[in-house]
Amino acid sequence: MSLPARVRITEVGPRDGLQNEAVILSTEQKCQLIKLLIEAGIREIEVAAFVHPRWMPTMADAEAVLAAVPRGQGVRYSVLIPNLKGYQRAAPLRPDEIVVVCSASERHNQANLNRSTTESLAEFQQVVALARHDHLPVRGAIATAFWCPYEGRISVSRVCDVAEAYAAMGVQEIALADTLGAADPRHVRELVLAVRESTGLPVSLHLHNTAGLALACLVAALDIGVERFDASIGGLGGCPYCPGAAGNVATEDVVFLLERLGIQTGIDQAKLLDAARYVQMLVGHPLHSYRLVTAGTIV
Amino acid sequence: MSLPARVRITEVGPRDGLQNEAVILSTEQKCQLIKLLIEAGIREIEVAAFVHPRWMPTMADAEAVLAAVPRGQGVRYSVLIPNLKGYQRAAPLRPDEIVVVCSASERHNQANLNRSTTESLAEFQQVVALARHDHLPVRGAIATAFWCPYEGRISVSRVCDVAEAYAAMGVQEIALADTLGAADPRHVRELVLAVRESTGLPVSLHLHNTAGLALACLVAALDIGVERFDASIGGLGGCPYCPGAAGNVATEDVVFLLERLGIQTGIDQAKLLDAARYVQMLVGHPLHSYRLVTAGTIV
Repeated sequence: MSLPARVRITEVGPRDGLQNEAVILSTEQKCQLIKLLIEAGIREIEVAAFVHPRWMPTMADAEAVLAAVPRGQGVRYSVLIPNLKGYQRAAPLRPDEIVVVCSASERHNQANLNRSTTESLAEFQQVVALARHDHLPVRGAIATAFWCPYEGRISVSRVCDVAEAYAAMGVQEIALADTLGAADPRHVRELVLAVRESTGLPVSLHLHNTAGLALACLVAALDIGVERFDASIGGLGGCPYCPGAAGNVATEDVVFLLERLGIQTGIDQAKLLDAARYVQMLVGHPLHSYRLVTAGTIV
Repeated sequence: MSLPARVRITEVGPRDGLQNEAVILSTEQKCQLIKLLIEAGIREIEVAAFVHPRWMPTMADAEAVLAAVPRGQGVRYSVLIPNLKGYQRAAPLRPDEIVVVCSASERHNQANLNRSTTESLAEFQQVVALARHDHLPVRGAIATAFWCPYEGRISVSRVCDVAEAYAAMGVQEIALADTLGAADPRHVRELVLAVRESTGLPVSLHLHNTAGLALACLVAALDIGVERFDASIGGLGGCPYCPGAAGNVATEDVVFLLERLGIQTGIDQAKLLDAARYVQMLVGHPLHSYRLVTAGTIV
């Protein structure tokens, strides 16, 4: 088993986690959550999606959140950008990184962004050009990179096509998202190696835990040197256009696993659970992470 | 990723799964569950524990179950034997395999079997001698082989000591049990390799899913050629002397993973879920397997 010495965890709870919750948190509550995450040692946080508020009212305060987060503490803030308009809203507030997202599955992209993947990629070409001009790093995320609820298993070559389009624009990294939460460790290995080979870019992973395989997939990715993973506090999350998908893999479960494997994360697990309990209280329903249940049993 | 072509799943739901349930199933209900498991394609089932009924009333009908299961269909039935008396009860009914169990942790053995590990192993020496005389194969199971709720992390050398004692008696296989459900993939790899090295015997795994790492541990074990795993229908199970431990890894989740990895199991996943739903109805509380929740979403 070959393991990287260091792993970066990008906390996506404030964005992917909260975006589909029935309860809309106030900007102050989101900032308090972000504060707790930082106190736990989290250093990369996706804090908002610059989506039209009509489509995603939970993210209507994206500007206010990005303007309010504490700067100068070594924390990097990223934001999700679905289109040119979103970029124009976000850029003046100087996020540390932007994330553009296009599905590998045509039907999921249509459901998620109401346009074809060709249209998305054409618009992202302009976004990435602007971001490069503005010296903002860009992650090119590929949703439904493994399975799609409408189209089934997605071919490796299809994902490589989207990844190569991103690479040609000049993104810094490819993020492969298992939006449905249906990937298996062998699939992860195959796809990550193929996308790296075809783009020459670092590849990160965004896993959901629908089939209970997210942590097994994460270990398979560590074994081939993947060093960056998205995770969501409390396992918050899902996708409104991915029926049945469970939440993101829980940050506290990922940190527990990494520490058990001897990979230092710099994150205080007890404080991380404080953040998970805080957001569980805010959303008002039980969250599904193993650590929330078993931290008292397994140390 | 190196994967075995074939994996044996030993269904332990009727024994480990049911032994700690509040509801005591009738012999007929247990046999109906076993019938559904066989119809799904399961070919190895641990059907009962020959423990004194005072300690484990759920297993009081061990003889009746073993006498009632259908023979001659290529299904192998194993039973758990805690002591000589248990062996004497079970042997006349000709199980296909017996399982003896000793904890690696002294305190867990005391709690579980009310005797020291030295006493357990001394008695098992007589049991294994009788089983060899009776031509019954024996698995030497080691409980709390990774972590103990009382003693913390168990050293590899301690586990090897118990395994070597089993090997000296003449058992056919060592089964390493993560009774607490706290093992991680690196620990699994290290311990399996060490026990194989020290005993020369095949090693199988019995995983619980308390920390959500059972499937990640299973993949790590596949990668070093482990070919036999215990699993429990619906994720039933736990251990009364392992506070906070979750159930066994669910058979339906293991089968889903193996099939996704391209390893044929010969098991019909839809029929397996029928068995899980049946036992869920009998025990009268929701079971925690991923497939019970997501089989409609992820195919």
